[in-house]
Amino acid sequence: MKKNSRKKSPKEAYRDLLQKIRELFLLEKSARVLEWDLRTYMPPQGMELRAEKLAYIAKLRHEMLINPELGERLSLLERSPLVKDPHPIVAANIRELSRLHERATKIPQNLVREITMAASHGEAIWREARQKSDFSLFKPFLEKILKLRKQEARALGHKNAYDAFLDEFEPGESEENVGRLIAELSAELVPFFGKIASKKKVDTSVLHRNYPVELQREFGILAAKTIGFDFNAGRLDVTSHPFCSGFGPGDCRITTRYNPHFFNEGFFGILHEAGHGIYEQGLDAKHFGTPAGDPCSFAIHESQSRTWENLVGRSRAFWEYFYPKAQKYFPQALDGVTLGGFYSAINAVEPSFIRVEADEVSYNLHIVLRFNIEQKLANGDLKVGDLPGAWNEGFKKLFGITPPNDAQGCLQDIHWAEGLFGYFPTYLLGNLYAAQFFDAARQKLPALEADFERGNFHPLKKWLHDYIHSMGLRYRAPELCQKVTGHTLSHKPFMAYLRSKFEA
Amino acid sequence: MKKNSRKKSPKEAYRDLLQKIRELFLLEKSARVLEWDLRTYMPPQGMELRAEKLAYIAKLRHEMLINPELGERLSLLERSPLVKDPHPIVAANIRELSRLHERATKIPQNLVREITMAASHGEAIWREARQKSDFSLFKPFLEKILKLRKQEARALGHKNAYDAFLDEFEPGESEENVGRLIAELSAELVPFFGKIASKKKVDTSVLHRNYPVELQREFGILAAKTIGFDFNAGRLDVTSHPFCSGFGPGDCRITTRYNPHFFNEGFFGILHEAGHGIYEQGLDAKHFGTPAGDPCSFAIHESQSRTWENLVGRSRAFWEYFYPKAQKYFPQALDGVTLGGFYSAINAVEPSFIRVEADEVSYNLHIVLRFNIEQKLANGDLKVGDLPGAWNEGFKKLFGITPPNDAQGCLQDIHWAEGLFGYFPTYLLGNLYAAQFFDAARQKLPALEADFERGNFHPLKKWLHDYIHSMGLRYRAPELCQKVTGHTLSHKPFMAYLRSKFEA
Repeated sequence: MKKNSRKKSPKEAYRDLLQKIRELFLLEKSARVLEWDLRTYMPPQGMELRAEKLAYIAKLRHEMLINPELGERLSLLERSPLVKDPHPIVAANIRELSRLHERATKIPQNLVREITMAASHGEAIWREARQKSDFSLFKPFLEKILKLRKQEARALGHKNAYDAFLDEFEPGESEENVGRLIAELSAELVPFFGKIASKKKVDTSVLHRNYPVELQREFGILAAKTIGFDFNAGRLDVTSHPFCSGFGPGDCRITTRYNPHFFNEGFFGILHEAGHGIYEQGLDAKHFGTPAGDPCSFAIHESQSRTWENLVGRSRAFWEYFYPKAQKYFPQALDGVTLGGFYSAINAVEPSFIRVEADEVSYNLHIVLRFNIEQKLANGDLKVGDLPGAWNEGFKKLFGITPPNDAQGCLQDIHWAEGLFGYFPTYLLGNLYAAQFFDAARQKLPALEADFERGNFHPLKKWLHDYIHSMGLRYRAPELCQKVTGHTLSHKPFMAYLRSKFEA
Repeated sequence: MKKNSRKKSPKEAYRDLLQKIRELFLLEKSARVLEWDLRTYMPPQGMELRAEKLAYIAKLRHEMLINPELGERLSLLERSPLVKDPHPIVAANIRELSRLHERATKIPQNLVREITMAASHGEAIWREARQKSDFSLFKPFLEKILKLRKQEARALGHKNAYDAFLDEFEPGESEENVGRLIAELSAELVPFFGKIASKKKVDTSVLHRNYPVELQREFGILAAKTIGFDFNAGRLDVTSHPFCSGFGPGDCRITTRYNPHFFNEGFFGILHEAGHGIYEQGLDAKHFGTPAGDPCSFAIHESQSRTWENLVGRSRAFWEYFYPKAQKYFPQALDGVTLGGFYSAINAVEPSFIRVEADEVSYNLHIVLRFNIEQKLANGDLKVGDLPGAWNEGFKKLFGITPPNDAQGCLQDIHWAEGLFGYFPTYLLGNLYAAQFFDAARQKLPALEADFERGNFHPLKKWLHDYIHSMGLRYRAPELCQKVTGHTLSHKPFMAYLRSKFEA
């Protein structure tokens, strides 16, 4: 690169930067293909080498990110007029790439390695602990990974560890703001849930009849296609832990799992991942390889999956269109079941110990609990050894019941085993964003529900595309929300949605 | 790397080299995953970005290969006592890595780019020409790619272009040696084929009955498992152009295509690819990332697929075991068909225009024709424009019939459209190697056929593993053949095999 060492103009530096960054993205998106295969089709003995390939690609990416030349270009650009360009893309790209470069350079290599190695052992330790419902097996690991993540937070220059945790998934978000939102939501949601859950239990047995897997697949594909997932630019496959992975323009993979005796697992799993997929497919292809063509944040991503899974997929209007079709796919299971009965069953609200099985209302309480615990772990108010007690006590307060064991309590989720602190709140923020965006869409598109009843989901998809998907990361989530809805994020649209749906 | 610039000892240099080379292999095998997905599951719109990812990985690999530091280490090692190590692995690794480094450095970057770009357009041009059976559409492209490949041969320092073509697939092989082998084979094979083909036509209608695809898949998997393909370290999927791809230890993918009205296409396709796969799975995992853990050559690879497809899979002993099972899988198609009738049908010999549909005997004549033409194209004795005429004339001489058009003549194969000259002979060499190895195995394992009849393919697999698979590229193909069979490669074992099988 020596021949390029003469002083560059900001425009030249920016052009070079885009080229380098495109290479970085090509590697990242290549790794996604390897990860997708690992989780869908890879034979068991392929694991060891696959992990080595992925680690090597990660190392290459890290070397590219910490390259001093990249840093020089970025600091030249950060001081240049380009960041004040009225066109927000250039400024956004410089801002987000500086963030990536900074994160990569500030965290010592040793620490990165320690965290990666710890996290790669965490899953197996957690699996055993959960299986035996024995927190003591998990405790030493959790202490270690928490300590490492706190070291990382300090290395990144955060005084407040939880701010650092959040920043990884929600750039620009803070503990203070999320704490306020969650407190405001809790104040209304806890009594609301109590009221709903005390009503007569809804009969959900219809969902547990016989749903042949192949027909679930076909019906799920029909629904995903109808709401706008493009199968010429994506696929649906089977995994034990469903996910969505964008390989870049023209190729987005979604996965689900089928339970032949439970309708929700496969179907709402597909709608959820298709929601993520529609977001990925809607990113601006001409900005691929830069932040402006990348998703905005984890919460914004989640808002898209929740929109299609819940706001649309569990709505009466959606099923006005799809229920007659469902009855044709599953004549035995749905014989004599009315639309009303089916709709009630898929919207039953009741306390449950397991987050991933929770309904739309109580789901958020599961997150409230985790957020409170993560905060205390981060600031030292809670010792890891006291986690099970704090969990059960917190659970009792929110749900009125106590988990029978740690497997159904504080050991249920894999996140902490992978060192992921600050991730859970993005699920809740996603629900809030979804409701606030949906309100904004409805104001522009008053016929939305009537469209759904006719199987026309295009107007909503187009609105989401124009205002959210195609924006990429040119605005950070809070700013995007302000631009799209005219307001900062609030719990109110979500609570209003819950009230109008579940008080009816 | 400056801190390492003090003079290294050969041992240190060798250790560094292995590390660098492992990274090179990790990238190559990562690209294989992307290519496999491209050809099996990728949605149509994924093509453009996938090509860019693959091109970028290829560029990274090329940069690593031409790195002058690598060259310095190699030349240090080539002058060191390590290459005289009685243990052949170190010497082999240095020899083969020097070859890769030399090839990468000698070919100018411009030329690499020109060839890559031409080849990437070649397929579409060829497809159209073949579809319209119009050689004139293909001619300008073929002239161009041939010219480029001849330039490449000169850049590599070969006076004889065809030696350079062969060297890409068969390191250490020469036009002279291959020409001699092919001439010796032809002298016996042409009259032999004439004699067999003039006999009464065998009824093959049984192979064209109804073979349900799902049952073909199950039966194919049973056979692949039985001969020794390990499905814990591999998979079988569907593609339009079957292939085998080794991702490294623990993961080898094979593919096939099914024709519901033709038994051979799916079944012998699976046996063929499983043969390649068993070779890949048998490479020495502890030498992964170095030539000693890599396949020996294209012809040796092909010898393994042909062994299982033909020498084993079309043998009477194989079907003694499998035919009763086949009858259970396909009761309708095989009802009342005797083992003898089925065996005759899968071994019918007759002239045909299309190489990939040819029987074991005439297949090699298809290669003889291509070799003769490639030689003349390489040395300038044949102009591209005169290719169709030369093809038809040559075909008439060998088969006694003339192709009705170029689509069934010189336009049938994709190889030249991809710039692959010197590739076809490896198919024929593979057949010769297979027969010579099989003879050597039979001398050590006199009960081989009796084993097959009992469904025991392990002794043969183990022999191939010990003498061939686990050897990797520590010997080049001609030397391997000498070591394993005690003789240089000859057409005689193959002719003897054909005579004993088809004169019976």
